[in-house]
Amino acid sequence: MEVIRVVPGVPEKHIRLTRIPGKAGVLLSFILIFMLSVSAAGNAAAQEKKQVVRIAKLLIDSAQLENYMTALKEHAETAVRVEPGVLTLYAVADKNAPAKITVFEIYADETAYKAHLQTAHFKKYKNTTKDMVKSLELVETVPIVLAAKPRL
Amino acid sequence: MEVIRVVPGVPEKHIRLTRIPGKAGVLLSFILIFMLSVSAAGNAAAQEKKQVVRIAKLLIDSAQLENYMTALKEHAETAVRVEPGVLTLYAVADKNAPAKITVFEIYADETAYKAHLQTAHFKKYKNTTKDMVKSLELVETVPIVLAAKPRL
Repeated sequence: MEVIRVVPGVPEKHIRLTRIPGKAGVLLSFILIFMLSVSAAGNAAAQEKKQVVRIAKLLIDSAQLENYMTALKEHAETAVRVEPGVLTLYAVADKNAPAKITVFEIYADETAYKAHLQTAHFKKYKNTTKDMVKSLELVETVPIVLAAKPRL
Repeated sequence: MEVIRVVPGVPEKHIRLTRIPGKAGVLLSFILIFMLSVSAAGNAAAQEKKQVVRIAKLLIDSAQLENYMTALKEHAETAVRVEPGVLTLYAVADKNAPAKITVFEIYADETAYKAHLQTAHFKKYKNTTKDMVKSLELVETVPIVLAAKPRL
């Protein structure tokens, strides 16, 4: 077992390789990993408490469904990519009633949600789709459990 | 810019530091990162098409709501942790009607979903909660967009 520290940006002749031998190295690694895990779990739990989770239920004009889905897809991908506080936008259509759409939305906190409403891409989406949406119900929620596999 | 390759498990005196100098190293790094990104995006898109996304809408007996939420939380966390094909179980309660619960479920594919129904933890959850659930509606869906930040 070797613990090797490589310092980036330092000329090669100054790179130091520190070896912590044998069992001490293994033990140290486990302690570090454990401490990092506990810290990450604590942070994640604290962050999850502030999250805003909302469900949007929409009924779309069937004649404009394709255009609506294109606009929604573009908007969701942009928002998650460019806004640090937009964590999840999952949009699905009912298999038996494709004009009925549900969007499951997670924002980092209330500030992130409010900022989202002011973005150019959100305003563009709202404007593009305003005549496609026959009804919109927004359900505010309280999360019970948000369990998901790691996602890279 | 230095590209440094450290070979783990090799005694220190045999560790080779390979330096690919200047612009060639930068260019090589960009090409590698680009190729990995394209490959990862292609795989992700192919995998996403097979995913099964379902929404469960439940009405719970208010007198048993706390017990129900405990059972649901335990079940969701276990399923996502131990089943490779259970990707997401997001459960929320309506803020204005806490006995109305929505679960947004993503499985890797149909096989993973069917395997989930046969697990001991799912059967335990169903058995524990059978007298707490007043109604259950399962909505099969077609995903439009599943956009989410990386999650570690």
